[in-house]
Amino acid sequence: MLSTFERFKSSQEVKKTRLCIGIDPVIERLPIHLQSVEGLKQFCNEIFDSTEDLCCCYKINFAFFEYLGVDGFIILKDLIKRIGSNVPVIADAKRGDIGNSSQYYAESVFNYFNADAITVNPYMGYDSVQPFLEHKGKFVFLLGLTSNPGSRDFQRLMVEGDVPLYEKVITLSKKWGDNYSLGYVVGATHHKELKRIAELVDSYMLLLPGIGTQGGKLEVAMEAIKGKNAIINVSRDIIFPSQNENYLEKVREKAQFYKEKLDLS
Amino acid sequence: MLSTFERFKSSQEVKKTRLCIGIDPVIERLPIHLQSVEGLKQFCNEIFDSTEDLCCCYKINFAFFEYLGVDGFIILKDLIKRIGSNVPVIADAKRGDIGNSSQYYAESVFNYFNADAITVNPYMGYDSVQPFLEHKGKFVFLLGLTSNPGSRDFQRLMVEGDVPLYEKVITLSKKWGDNYSLGYVVGATHHKELKRIAELVDSYMLLLPGIGTQGGKLEVAMEAIKGKNAIINVSRDIIFPSQNENYLEKVREKAQFYKEKLDLS
Repeated sequence: MLSTFERFKSSQEVKKTRLCIGIDPVIERLPIHLQSVEGLKQFCNEIFDSTEDLCCCYKINFAFFEYLGVDGFIILKDLIKRIGSNVPVIADAKRGDIGNSSQYYAESVFNYFNADAITVNPYMGYDSVQPFLEHKGKFVFLLGLTSNPGSRDFQRLMVEGDVPLYEKVITLSKKWGDNYSLGYVVGATHHKELKRIAELVDSYMLLLPGIGTQGGKLEVAMEAIKGKNAIINVSRDIIFPSQNENYLEKVREKAQFYKEKLDLS
Repeated sequence: MLSTFERFKSSQEVKKTRLCIGIDPVIERLPIHLQSVEGLKQFCNEIFDSTEDLCCCYKINFAFFEYLGVDGFIILKDLIKRIGSNVPVIADAKRGDIGNSSQYYAESVFNYFNADAITVNPYMGYDSVQPFLEHKGKFVFLLGLTSNPGSRDFQRLMVEGDVPLYEKVITLSKKWGDNYSLGYVVGATHHKELKRIAELVDSYMLLLPGIGTQGGKLEVAMEAIKGKNAIINVSRDIIFPSQNENYLEKVREKAQFYKEKLDLS
């Protein structure tokens, strides 16, 4: 069986794009006719069915399912099952706890929901990340410099060695896993820092959210990560182009647009 | 309706103890006859029913329910409902994401699961924490210096101003909320730092895990937080004293022991 890392690579080769589509089904932004629990399920399935050939992977944000409780968890599990083995799935769950607890979070995301990769928060250090890395063949994206305004509060603080905290997070944690199992989340909104971070992570994979709605510029990101292992995520700008019944035509147009802009051929 | 802060205070006054019991139902440590999904549900209910008079609140670790998927979420929701309005419930969920996503995590924990308080990871900064604070009457415990060995990897790094990162997290984030809505998680395992941290947080509430199995010493913690708003959590050392059918007698003995050691009268 191929590892998640190998599946990311082969999926990028086949689809010839770095595009990851983020499935963040914020209920009030769904097409009007789908603003219900049943509708949300249909929306997720239709987004996948209409874009499967246009992206190298999907990133699914757990927040937008968890608030629906049991109904949301069922939709989430079914969605990951539907995506199946064709396209890798990143669980954007931002977990992380003391080792004993992280072990069960890993069990939940990798074995119960059957996702291929997960985003993990580094604040609690080595033993909070290790249980996720122990799942052979899966993949961990550690938060480096996140795409949101709050990333400046702590991540950019200068620490010992005269580097910003996010840089220390990356250089220290690289020893925790190899580039087949570990990568980093870096917001594409940080135009000035992207090139330096891409050099810093070396062969470790980057996952770049923040393109589109959050203000990250696609061309800047593409230039900075040229020749690197990198996945670029677009969520809201692809999945919410219209609230009309024929929204899927526009979703496909948007996905096609980003697929080509994030070309890897 | 009383706020969570007021309920913490009145619960401590009535019960005369700082003891919070952590419900972390690691399945292989449950009494032998309860090592099943149904058994786990029964275990949680029995722990609550046998200790309700002995603690000021409960801390429930979401990891140990999430790995069971839908079954686990149903048990979790039912458990919080059973605990009801008598004893405040801290959701130890360690969430945190960009604002738009944190909003839905808050919705999940506070409205769907109906917990009274939550633990939140500070790494992503202000806009990742704010959505939790916006739920009036609820309570947020931000991770400060966590109880695990990995806390030394980043939390203890010296940052600008020549203070450790966890200290910067506390001083900066105090402005994000007041002491009625915001407090800090500080591991009772950090014997040397507890007193200084208790001064630093001032009137903001502390939640101290790490007593017992993790090595935190109860007397040291009690001395450090004398006269402060503080809740001391004990999980494994109370809930797993025996794997026999009569385990509840031992659970009650242990809870009684800690209740008295953490006396507030």
